[in-house]
Amino acid sequence: MVNHSRLSEFDLIKKYLRPLAQAASGAALLSDDAAVLPTKDGHHLVVTMDTLISDVHFFEITPPHLIAAKSLRVNISDLASMGADPAFYTLSLSLPYDGDVKYDADWLSRFSQGLAIEQDLFGITLVGGDTVSTPGPLSLTITAFGWVKIGQAIMRSGATAGDLVYVSGTIGDSWLGLSSLRGRFLELDPSYIEFVTDSYHLPQPRLDLGQRLYGVANSAIDISDGLIQDLGHICRASKVSAAIKTDNIPLSGPARVLVADNTQLINSLISGGDDYELLFTVPKKWDRTISNMAKELDLPLSLIGFIEPSVHDHLVAIYDEEGTKIDLTSTGYQHF
Amino acid sequence: MVNHSRLSEFDLIKKYLRPLAQAASGAALLSDDAAVLPTKDGHHLVVTMDTLISDVHFFEITPPHLIAAKSLRVNISDLASMGADPAFYTLSLSLPYDGDVKYDADWLSRFSQGLAIEQDLFGITLVGGDTVSTPGPLSLTITAFGWVKIGQAIMRSGATAGDLVYVSGTIGDSWLGLSSLRGRFLELDPSYIEFVTDSYHLPQPRLDLGQRLYGVANSAIDISDGLIQDLGHICRASKVSAAIKTDNIPLSGPARVLVADNTQLINSLISGGDDYELLFTVPKKWDRTISNMAKELDLPLSLIGFIEPSVHDHLVAIYDEEGTKIDLTSTGYQHF
Repeated sequence: MVNHSRLSEFDLIKKYLRPLAQAASGAALLSDDAAVLPTKDGHHLVVTMDTLISDVHFFEITPPHLIAAKSLRVNISDLASMGADPAFYTLSLSLPYDGDVKYDADWLSRFSQGLAIEQDLFGITLVGGDTVSTPGPLSLTITAFGWVKIGQAIMRSGATAGDLVYVSGTIGDSWLGLSSLRGRFLELDPSYIEFVTDSYHLPQPRLDLGQRLYGVANSAIDISDGLIQDLGHICRASKVSAAIKTDNIPLSGPARVLVADNTQLINSLISGGDDYELLFTVPKKWDRTISNMAKELDLPLSLIGFIEPSVHDHLVAIYDEEGTKIDLTSTGYQHF
Repeated sequence: MVNHSRLSEFDLIKKYLRPLAQAASGAALLSDDAAVLPTKDGHHLVVTMDTLISDVHFFEITPPHLIAAKSLRVNISDLASMGADPAFYTLSLSLPYDGDVKYDADWLSRFSQGLAIEQDLFGITLVGGDTVSTPGPLSLTITAFGWVKIGQAIMRSGATAGDLVYVSGTIGDSWLGLSSLRGRFLELDPSYIEFVTDSYHLPQPRLDLGQRLYGVANSAIDISDGLIQDLGHICRASKVSAAIKTDNIPLSGPARVLVADNTQLINSLISGGDDYELLFTVPKKWDRTISNMAKELDLPLSLIGFIEPSVHDHLVAIYDEEGTKIDLTSTGYQHF
């Protein structure tokens, strides 16, 4: 058992975390046992929780403000996928007690400044949490809260045979960024390397899109596990199957350059995960609405396939540009 | 970076955690990005978050149902201290990936059965969370939610000079339990050993008491850091000081036996923490109300001291049975 110093916890909270809670009166400046928060008439509370661990979900050497940003954004992305509006969050910070040198006042200062920037960007405020010492790696758990009008949350379970399958942004950039941080694809132009590592470090929660999808989309999910696996989650929850074509997958400049060189790479891009784009299904009659939405939001929304009645042998069928079915399991990917 | 299997996460959630969420329709059986939860008219949402780490907050060999129970109860105790009624919780479970043998299906089954029992006991339901693999020790973070009538939350910050300081139950049993698990005090009667280890493993959140304190108590806190330190938290938040007498501290049978033998032990009992009793301050006029409450709840509520105007040299003054001021710092304890 570790006799972790509660006094230093008090100082840590006071100096670095309390300023982040100043906008939330119910948080009592993090000095009570719990936060007491107002609810919002006519709205449901949307709650999501994600844990990120050093050298599992981010590299240990990642600058602290980027760890802060990503930890918050992956949670906000979950709110976005439900059509919710971010409101507040709690943070539990497990700091390695044998890592005093690394996780010092400077690190904490840069980490909390990172959170402050994200709070402004996404309209979300710290209201509580915990800080503990751990013999393990740095670990962060965030519980994020948002509001959605009653009955207007978009679930995974509403996809219907005949729906069109859309995805926002471009796919696979975060996986390319992770790969480049591991030393792959370094033949890419430096500006491309920067673009893909930014995609990995700073996902863009699609809040505006998520909040417009009510009444249009039958289902939505944010892509964290990989496009194919997350489409599988929609299919499983909705008891349907899906078919997509790889040449419809929206790719960025660097991804196009690499796929032109190695067509098999598309399998990694659609399985890699961490995209935090929205994947959603829409009845055919709304295709023009989606085109207009893409223009208004200045965000690519690409039609990549369609939902079909549930078939017994797969959740998601993938076809290449020649119409040949791709078996991801045979290429070394998980079976869905 | 660890390539942790998302498929096994899916199975883990489906098999062990989903049954715990069956009562909460908004949790969509844990199969969506976030939970969508109804709010409660005329109530504020109370939110608390605690992380427990193996061999920091509990022994690695602790039976899984007791880890489950304590993790949930320390959070529920925070709700109790605010006067809130528990409603739901999210759980993030970080499982060591090199510990497959230890944290196997049997462990998960016993852990989730433990949670199920606690859910029934405290009227709280799982609504979401996360499961990740970690290279570190087993770690659990729970965010617990409760409801309190608007304006009726009891804060740390309301203590007023002249208030009486009360504490529920008996103090120091959990510290004795922890000590006995470490091999101390084994001269105690076996039934006493069992009593103090139970106190350590299964704290009793004082929900009934907390919910009755509105309109009577000016401030309240649950004792997690130790009676003296938590009274210090009340004093700091309320900008007051406090004076208590050690011979007023309510002690259990085993604690009395040990203190009779070694009077210095009282300092450990009031500093040890993990009691999860409620510490609260009450205007003098309500002393009879508190006596009656103790009878109705069949729970000792002991007057241990009083609140005084803020003095510059201490938050909490401690006097022994002869009226001599005790300096805990000189006896090796933290300074408050």
